[in-house]
Amino acid sequence: MIKVIECVPNFSTSDPQVVKPILDEIERTADAHVLDHTYDDYYNRLVVTFVGNEQSIIQAALHSAAKAIELIDMNKHTGQHPRLGAVDVVPFIPLGSASIRDCVEIARKFGESLANQSHVPVYLYGAAATRPERSDLDWIRKGEFEALSEMITKPDRNPDFGPSKAHPTAGATVTGARPVMAGFNINLGTSDLKIAKKIAQALHAKKGGFATVKAMAAAIPERKITQIGTSITDFRKTPLYRVFELIKLEAERYSVPVISSEFCGLAPLKSLIDIASHYLKIDNLTEDRVIEIAVQEAMEKAE
Amino acid sequence: MIKVIECVPNFSTSDPQVVKPILDEIERTADAHVLDHTYDDYYNRLVVTFVGNEQSIIQAALHSAAKAIELIDMNKHTGQHPRLGAVDVVPFIPLGSASIRDCVEIARKFGESLANQSHVPVYLYGAAATRPERSDLDWIRKGEFEALSEMITKPDRNPDFGPSKAHPTAGATVTGARPVMAGFNINLGTSDLKIAKKIAQALHAKKGGFATVKAMAAAIPERKITQIGTSITDFRKTPLYRVFELIKLEAERYSVPVISSEFCGLAPLKSLIDIASHYLKIDNLTEDRVIEIAVQEAMEKAE
Repeated sequence: MIKVIECVPNFSTSDPQVVKPILDEIERTADAHVLDHTYDDYYNRLVVTFVGNEQSIIQAALHSAAKAIELIDMNKHTGQHPRLGAVDVVPFIPLGSASIRDCVEIARKFGESLANQSHVPVYLYGAAATRPERSDLDWIRKGEFEALSEMITKPDRNPDFGPSKAHPTAGATVTGARPVMAGFNINLGTSDLKIAKKIAQALHAKKGGFATVKAMAAAIPERKITQIGTSITDFRKTPLYRVFELIKLEAERYSVPVISSEFCGLAPLKSLIDIASHYLKIDNLTEDRVIEIAVQEAMEKAE
Repeated sequence: MIKVIECVPNFSTSDPQVVKPILDEIERTADAHVLDHTYDDYYNRLVVTFVGNEQSIIQAALHSAAKAIELIDMNKHTGQHPRLGAVDVVPFIPLGSASIRDCVEIARKFGESLANQSHVPVYLYGAAATRPERSDLDWIRKGEFEALSEMITKPDRNPDFGPSKAHPTAGATVTGARPVMAGFNINLGTSDLKIAKKIAQALHAKKGGFATVKAMAAAIPERKITQIGTSITDFRKTPLYRVFELIKLEAERYSVPVISSEFCGLAPLKSLIDIASHYLKIDNLTEDRVIEIAVQEAMEKAE
């Protein structure tokens, strides 16, 4: 198996005129491949998924970040998702035979280069964090872009790279390394954001919910519904069916139906296996017993 | 995408001393790779899944068939699954860029070579059938090994290749081409085979069940349970959750619990996506939005 690095940068834009040039920068980088991108107005946020090797992944991340910093002015940005800057967060994720250590190294190189290139302060998070509290993205992002100029002057808020001063239009960037996680959004048949917030709290690790889950509520006014956005950092420990069924249970209290759900970004195969195995009581279904994976592995061995 | 052919031969044995030499014959064939094999005493049947290219798949199928014919005596064989011979059925299935026409051609070559090599009568079924009624495996297998000597002399039962005479120890072989199907077994918490048979009938296409489903009931005495074995020829039209939920519904009538289930052979990714999408109400989840597949496709494009 070769080393494949996945990068899932989050940019603070949902303007198609800005989205396209950012994607173009990744596409034009040799050996970098965009797998997916999603953006919407209620989060006002672009999430791109791309893969590459240890060199191309950094190049593509730097090219796209430079374009975003050029085109996005955070002073004009509003949205329901917390954010610190134009290039808000840039996680690197090991796939294939790549390790989390490889991705820590990559995040450091990317962070240092970005700070030098664009004079944006950069924080390291996740497995790349330089202090324990900084492994938590929420801790770093506290106060968001609006409070950044004030927060960044505090000694414990000094960035890992770049100036101790917010970039006037691009704020700051957080980069780091983490394992594959599942982003999963569940739509509720209510426009009442208060109900959605209560349900999100029931799930959220810091509020007593599942230890590997972060959840937030957002309104989708044009559809007159609300959405629970979840990040499941370890979907092997906390399978998605459990998250979904807990949301259903909490929503029943308010007679609110769960109307649909969607993966934010790509779906990990293991998360689908766990869902199918739960509802159909399937014994012993593993990734290598899925035809497409078994064939792929047999062909790789043959090479 | 390259052409990959899958072959899922069913042999009439569950004797480890016979299973191993059969598998060895496939493994020793260049460019043929065993992905999976399952066998058990109650069906007294070995199901092997292997892949190869257009040449190696025929070679591996012929090698393993010769070994099975050498070692299995159908006169001593009993089992709950219908069977016509030692090498009971040998379907060829297109994967990657291979087509069903490629597999029809392969089945014909295999059938002719097997008849010449081992003097076993061979029938063509599925997309390779030479008469409409022969597309149905059950039609060909009617009367099973025990009635074969009598049936084979009838003009409409003439084999497509080989002598119009049952092989004394190996019976006959059916080979053909078909799309990927799902084999799915559901275990019931009852030892009452009559109940299991009623439930199987509710599912079976010919009894008014789902048009793409074949179902049969079998006893698993050592576990004091029964099993519904299903073949879902088009799991895109008839998703597995629907089959599972119908079994649950019918079983409730008898207060019988569904205790577990398992794929027989490998699981097609699409079948897992459909299960997850149903229970979690996921919108728009497709195969190319699963990480492992998206990465694979990006890497193939890059080559």
